[in-house]
Amino acid sequence: MKNDVNRQFRLKSRPVGRIKTSDFDLVEARIPEPGAGEALVRNLYLSLDPTNRIWMSDMDQYMPPVKIGEVMRGGGIGVVVKSNSSAYQVGDHVSGLVGWQDYTIAGEKPEQRMGVIPKGLPVPLTAMMGACGMTGLTAYFGLLELGMPKPGETVVVSAAAGAVGSVVGQIAKIKGCRAVGIAGGPDKCKWLTDELGFDAAVDYKRAGWKEELARATPNGIDVNFENVGGEIMEAVMARMNLFSRMPLCGMISGYNTGEPMRGDFGPILMKRIAIRGFIVIDFMAKYAEGSRQLAEWVAQGKIKHRETIVDGLEQAPTAVNKLFDGENMGKLIVKLADPEKF
Amino acid sequence: MKNDVNRQFRLKSRPVGRIKTSDFDLVEARIPEPGAGEALVRNLYLSLDPTNRIWMSDMDQYMPPVKIGEVMRGGGIGVVVKSNSSAYQVGDHVSGLVGWQDYTIAGEKPEQRMGVIPKGLPVPLTAMMGACGMTGLTAYFGLLELGMPKPGETVVVSAAAGAVGSVVGQIAKIKGCRAVGIAGGPDKCKWLTDELGFDAAVDYKRAGWKEELARATPNGIDVNFENVGGEIMEAVMARMNLFSRMPLCGMISGYNTGEPMRGDFGPILMKRIAIRGFIVIDFMAKYAEGSRQLAEWVAQGKIKHRETIVDGLEQAPTAVNKLFDGENMGKLIVKLADPEKF
Repeated sequence: MKNDVNRQFRLKSRPVGRIKTSDFDLVEARIPEPGAGEALVRNLYLSLDPTNRIWMSDMDQYMPPVKIGEVMRGGGIGVVVKSNSSAYQVGDHVSGLVGWQDYTIAGEKPEQRMGVIPKGLPVPLTAMMGACGMTGLTAYFGLLELGMPKPGETVVVSAAAGAVGSVVGQIAKIKGCRAVGIAGGPDKCKWLTDELGFDAAVDYKRAGWKEELARATPNGIDVNFENVGGEIMEAVMARMNLFSRMPLCGMISGYNTGEPMRGDFGPILMKRIAIRGFIVIDFMAKYAEGSRQLAEWVAQGKIKHRETIVDGLEQAPTAVNKLFDGENMGKLIVKLADPEKF
Repeated sequence: MKNDVNRQFRLKSRPVGRIKTSDFDLVEARIPEPGAGEALVRNLYLSLDPTNRIWMSDMDQYMPPVKIGEVMRGGGIGVVVKSNSSAYQVGDHVSGLVGWQDYTIAGEKPEQRMGVIPKGLPVPLTAMMGACGMTGLTAYFGLLELGMPKPGETVVVSAAAGAVGSVVGQIAKIKGCRAVGIAGGPDKCKWLTDELGFDAAVDYKRAGWKEELARATPNGIDVNFENVGGEIMEAVMARMNLFSRMPLCGMISGYNTGEPMRGDFGPILMKRIAIRGFIVIDFMAKYAEGSRQLAEWVAQGKIKHRETIVDGLEQAPTAVNKLFDGENMGKLIVKLADPEKF
């Protein structure tokens, strides 16, 4: 790759169904020059997340959709290479919405703000996007603040082998709950039970998985951390207990369809379920507390995490589909540049 | 009618679609004799409520379905005519699950327990089933405990001319909110705005009602007190604000269909809506407080209520359909006997 350009994926058309490389223009732009109060960030890692698919669409959503012609929005980690701001020092690692590009301008205004990652963390840098970063924090706040699990209760999480789900189940175990994951395929299920300590994992690709879910949750379900929607959500909701809680984190099965993400409201009424939709940014004021706790658990080996790292920005539009195809385990990351070089 | 028999509607078959008289057997049973610790209650009023339809079905529900051959379950008010219990004095008015019959046995065990209505209330006896009773309490706790309306916020309620909805809107006004009701037909809408003080009423039977809902809620919707489900629920949810609340009280549009009561979960996620299904009995510990406050508001004229009284037990199976046909305004009651005679 050339080092004197800023490669950018700009959204060309809103994907219909599966994301295609042709939905983007890969443009070679000039590397931007930071103004007063700004810093230039060389992006190192791009975080691929289901919410990327939402931002590409014009469905009703929690941030403005990415406009056609705009650089694709995406979270990630970079290193400050030039700075005209006292908030950012050259060499600082920063995390935030870096976008699908090689370079980003960080600034002091809220919409340009990036978080400086503390030095000397007991975990690798990439963990700050995953288990100790946005996906870990999503699991942490969604489960603890909204799911309110009590020791002995049963927590079920869908997309359990994903970056969020895998942490949800491990926090549930730390909190003394029975943790049951739903995932696709024997490898993922084996990872959940044998390596991460889930009490049971249900493979939704197997015939009879609903009966397996019933066997795995003999006392019903007290907390459903919902990532998937659709048929899996309905099967879980049918087993939820009176006064159970359901943090609604995502409905990944519906993002590619363009249809309303419908589900049965009957159990909500009959079981008096408390459902709360949430986005991790709702808990921004408590990020530091959450990251510190997660890093401690990771360092202690109480939370294990796995990363799938894809090499090169140009892979982003194809790699992101792994999230929807059920191919991915753990945190899906695109490596843009070698952190050792900066 | 004969005075020496206990007429009972026993469930003969689970209704398919609309409730039919032929779904019941009208039986002349012997008037039961109260045992030790029991009292005989002459039922005076039967409360007809949407939940009756749920109890007739075998859908997954919050109490056991009425069994085939059992007396139909129903709330109501009666007068104690014989007593072998210190908990009930002859002449006491009691409320509880009297059933679709002329006489009931009240007892001291939880499942036979009835509430003795205090004497000297500032409201008519029938109000103790409606605005100050179960339906009023449903409105009170659902709106205040789960909806948590703040002054200046917009509260929308569906089935707004019903016994619950009409009280929801009036409590919303007492609490300083903008109250918007959704109801069917100009008479109901006029009643809501001209007599009950709702800020706006949207007639869902008119073409363009969704645009009317948008005009009636210029600042979006902060609390959706949901009674109806289906298309109305989806239209309201599409206008709900970030971090809005949705007490889910009922989905009356779905009770006759036998199908799952599906709705769009998308807004829950994107707007971070808090939904809680509930049944008034969840708040049983606070009934006294709620009834006292409601009776005060009714006596002060801050809550107005309307009753539709149908005469004669034999009318119950046909009259209950008014709730589903949208014919009813206010509290729907069947009068079984003249309270003056006891």
